[in-house]
Formats: sequence, structure tokens, C-alpha cells
Amino acid sequence: MSKLLVVGTVAFDAIETPFGKTDKILGGAATYISLSAAQFGVKPGIVSVVGGDFPKEYLKKLNEKNINTEGIEIVEDGKTFFWKGKYHNDLNTRDTLITDLNVLADFNPVVPKEFMDAEFLMLGNLHPAVQMSVINQLAKRPKLIVLDTMNFWMDNALDLLMEVIAKIDVITINDEEARQLSGEYSLVKAAHKIHKMGPKYVVIKKGEHGALLFNNGNVFFAPALPLEEVFDPTGAGDTFAGGFIGHMARTGDISFENMKRAVICGSNLASFSVEKFGTERMESLTNDEIQKRLLQFKLLTQFEIELN
Amino acid sequence: MSKLLVVGTVAFDAIETPFGKTDKILGGAATYISLSAAQFGVKPGIVSVVGGDFPKEYLKKLNEKNINTEGIEIVEDGKTFFWKGKYHNDLNTRDTLITDLNVLADFNPVVPKEFMDAEFLMLGNLHPAVQMSVINQLAKRPKLIVLDTMNFWMDNALDLLMEVIAKIDVITINDEEARQLSGEYSLVKAAHKIHKMGPKYVVIKKGEHGALLFNNGNVFFAPALPLEEVFDPTGAGDTFAGGFIGHMARTGDISFENMKRAVICGSNLASFSVEKFGTERMESLTNDEIQKRLLQFKLLTQFEIELN
Repeated sequence: MSKLLVVGTVAFDAIETPFGKTDKILGGAATYISLSAAQFGVKPGIVSVVGGDFPKEYLKKLNEKNINTEGIEIVEDGKTFFWKGKYHNDLNTRDTLITDLNVLADFNPVVPKEFMDAEFLMLGNLHPAVQMSVINQLAKRPKLIVLDTMNFWMDNALDLLMEVIAKIDVITINDEEARQLSGEYSLVKAAHKIHKMGPKYVVIKKGEHGALLFNNGNVFFAPALPLEEVFDPTGAGDTFAGGFIGHMARTGDISFENMKRAVICGSNLASFSVEKFGTERMESLTNDEIQKRLLQFKLLTQFEIELN
Repeated sequence: MSKLLVVGTVAFDAIETPFGKTDKILGGAATYISLSAAQFGVKPGIVSVVGGDFPKEYLKKLNEKNINTEGIEIVEDGKTFFWKGKYHNDLNTRDTLITDLNVLADFNPVVPKEFMDAEFLMLGNLHPAVQMSVINQLAKRPKLIVLDTMNFWMDNALDLLMEVIAKIDVITINDEEARQLSGEYSLVKAAHKIHKMGPKYVVIKKGEHGALLFNNGNVFFAPALPLEEVFDPTGAGDTFAGGFIGHMARTGDISFENMKRAVICGSNLASFSVEKFGTERMESLTNDEIQKRLLQFKLLTQFEIELN
């Protein structure tokens, strides 16, 4: 079991889908990533920031899942990052209604001593300056650094983002972001260009259409599990990233063969996350359920064919 | 090797993509299906109609690929069905500029004697009345009937289409059409409803996102091969169907396990079809190339993971 450090937002989300709506509930990239990674028996440590309004019971909930919250700074007179979004009927698109950065606006991340020698580092989606600061604080270069980011940073902090991208091993972005970052429509060409920016491994997330893993000439595809109903897609991408890094940290094996398993694990965990609002499904999820669904992924994709 | 009968259009296509444009070239659903199925060593017979303007060399070209064109009626004083379309920059959407039904408007299909006992029947996309007529002409119910159709017939001949759907074993339609036919957004639910209309097997084609094969509770996914460049998507769906039925007819095995291989074969053949304009790539395609790409499909999808 390797040490896993997760950087990202810990937040309040308010979500509206065609199936209902929530008040402020627990959310944030680091939350979803850690809940997902923790399913693999690793004990992730989070680096993040919240306000004095953040319920202690949420931290306790994370601790009970073996997530170390020592690196979550609490700004007592500040307010927690808040996101409010509304999904369209197809659940594939959404409008952001509110983004209150609050304490995130002046966040200076501090890596706890215990995680200075983390072997696996997951940089969840937030300002590339924060991501870079964490990379620079670590005593030793981790075995594997995975970066998640989004179009917002390409639009608003591209130079800094490119510096971070040059330093990491695996980038996970969605298809539209891969196209924006590379200027290529073909995802094969996009991955090729992104390789040249630094990352040896490029994971392109296509939502309900699965995810592609590229490694200079090699390509592997993990489908999304076809579901009767998607209830709430919030956090699915982060849960995918958490399943990916969770499997990697559990096994400690950073080969391409093992990364194939990691994207399947990511897709597996994400398929649960969307079944209920927010983090609800991830909180009740058991290893037995994960194993059963892994078998479904095998049935979904594995075939025997003779070459002649 | 089983006898395969293919019903569908044999046509002139004029295609415009961001990479160039063609004059009237050989096209049509039955053409693409048969060229694809013929790669599997079966000798498909086509039932279709063309006008006196249809070049004899096109028929000869099909014959050279072991395709029986005896069932292609030639209306000497008529004109061949003509379709002209223009693809948008993303190559995922297109505008139909011209659809001249011509001889197709009064087409009464006649199944050649040699194919009255066909064990495999592929009903390519055309008027459901023509599809029904062919089903009714056959001396014996084929071992497997596969139907391809499109939203146009759902809009304009739904009752008749539903009668055909009730009689067939496998339906292949794209995701939007599956949603229209079932009234369900979720493809899992859509497939479930379509099962109830008759077909035991439902294949939902998602273009560059692959295809799903449903069989009451079982589901299998065949990805599309990620390509550097898609040159011309015309006929990709028909080529997929041809690879599917070609594999089925070659093996004669209509089990779900073998159908998994058939959708992989369909996806494999379709990945070639889009590499050049019209039928060009299918005409030069060799078995060696097909086998090599089949290996790519294995590398793309196969993984080893231990359940614990």
C-alpha cells in the first residue's frame, strides 16, 4: 500500500437534476477522489481548505473512511467554496448557477509532514498555482503524479497550467478539453500532441461513452457501464480519477498493463457515483458491490476470437 | 458457409467532406453491406434495383468480390437512386442535399430462386414494405434475420415498420433512433422496450463511440477503433452491419457469444470503410489487414484483473 496525497477542493454543492434537488451538501474534487480511492484500501491524505461553516461531521465522515484530513486548513472566519449547478434533461450538460470561491480564493496549500514523501500524488481540478505549489513542497518526486484539470484553467491560466502539465505523468481531461488543449479534433492526434507537452499517459474521459488511455502509440479503452438511470453525474469524473489513482496506489505498479486495470477501476467506481445524489452512493459502497460490478465490466468487454 | 441474402439500396452517392468531394460514385446500403460481408468468404446475393444509367462495370466489380447481383433488377428506362450529402467539419453530422428515389419509388423486390432458402437475411435500410415483401417471399424462415432501419421510416411508415420489427431477430439502429423508437433516453431502457417489440437482439450503433449489443439482460460493448483521421463516414453503419452478418453467416453460429464476435467484426470493418471516399477502401481491403486490426481491437479492450 503506497502513500497517496490528494489535492483539490472540499466544498458545498447544491445540485438540481430532473430527479430532484439538494441544499448545500458535501462536494468537491478532493472529496470525491478520496472517497473513491479509499475504496481500494489506501488511506489518502487531502490537502485543501474550508471555512468555519464547514460541518465537523463532514470531516468525521471522511476520517471514518480512512481519509486523512489533517491537510484540510480550516479558515474559521471564512466561508467554504460553494458550487450550485443545474443539469439539463439529458444529464449530459449542465449550467453553473453559482460559483463562490470564498476561502479558495487565497488558498496556500500546506502538505502535512506525514505526506511529504507520498509516492502517489493526485492533483484534483483547481488553480494550477496550487497544484504547482504542492509538487514543489514534496521532499521527493512521487512515483506517479496524476493531474485533472478543466477548460476554465486553459482559458484563464494557460501558461501556468502548461508548466504543471510538463511536470506530471498522467493527465485526465474530457474530450472537449483535450481538443481545446491540443487544437486537434481527432482524439488520437490530440493525445499525441498532449504527450509532447509532458505527460507520458493521457486519459481522455468521454462521460457516458467511456474513457481512452493513451501511451505513445498504445491505446486502451474503458467503457462506461450502460446504466438504466443516471441520477446525478456530479463528481463522476473525480470519482473516476479516484478509482484510477486508488488502484495504482494499492498495487504500486505503474506499468501500462496495470494502468489498463486502473481505468477500468475508475470507470467502475464512477458507475456507482452517478446512482445517487452527491457522495451518497460512495458513502454506502462496499467492496463486494465493486467486485460484482467488475465482473459486469468483464462481461461487457471481453471476447474470444480466433485470428485466421 | 451459409447462404446470405442482402436487401437494400444500390445507388449513386455524391459526397462532400472537409477533405474533398466526389461526383456520382457507387453507393447504397446493399453495396456496403455486401462488400463488407463478402470479406468473410460468404457469397452474398443482393436484391435491389438500379436504372439503365447504372454502369455495368459496377456490377462487374461486385461480382468480382463474389457478390451475386442476379437479384438486382435493371430498369432500363429508369434512373438509379441518387443521394448527395455534405458532412460538417466534425464529420459526425451531415446535411442531405439531394435524395432522388428514381427507380426505388416503384420497386417490387424479387428474390432469385437460388436465394429462396437463404439461412441469413440482412434487411438493409429501405422502405419496410420492401423488407416485408422479401421476408414473405422466402420459402423457409431464415435462421437469422437482421434489420437495419432509420428515423425516416419511423416518421413516415411506423405501422409497417413495427410489423417488420416484430418478425426479425436482430435490429441495428443508432442511438438517436433507438431513443425515438422507444421513447426512452437511457439506452438500457430503450433496448428493453425494443426487445418487447420483437427482436431478441438489439444492436445500438453510437458511431465513433462504438456499439452496444443487448440480449435480454446481457450486454456487450464493441468500441470503435480510435482513428487518426476519419475521411468519409458514408456507409460506416452499413459496413458495420455487413461485418456483423458476414461473421454470422460464415460461422453459422447464432449464439450470444458468437454475436459478440460479430459486433467486433462489424466495428473492425467499419473502421476501414471510413478511411477513404465511398467504397474505395472496402474494395482494396485484404484479409491480412482485417486480421491485424482485429488484434488492435483485442489490445484496445482486453484486460486481466483479479477479483478479490
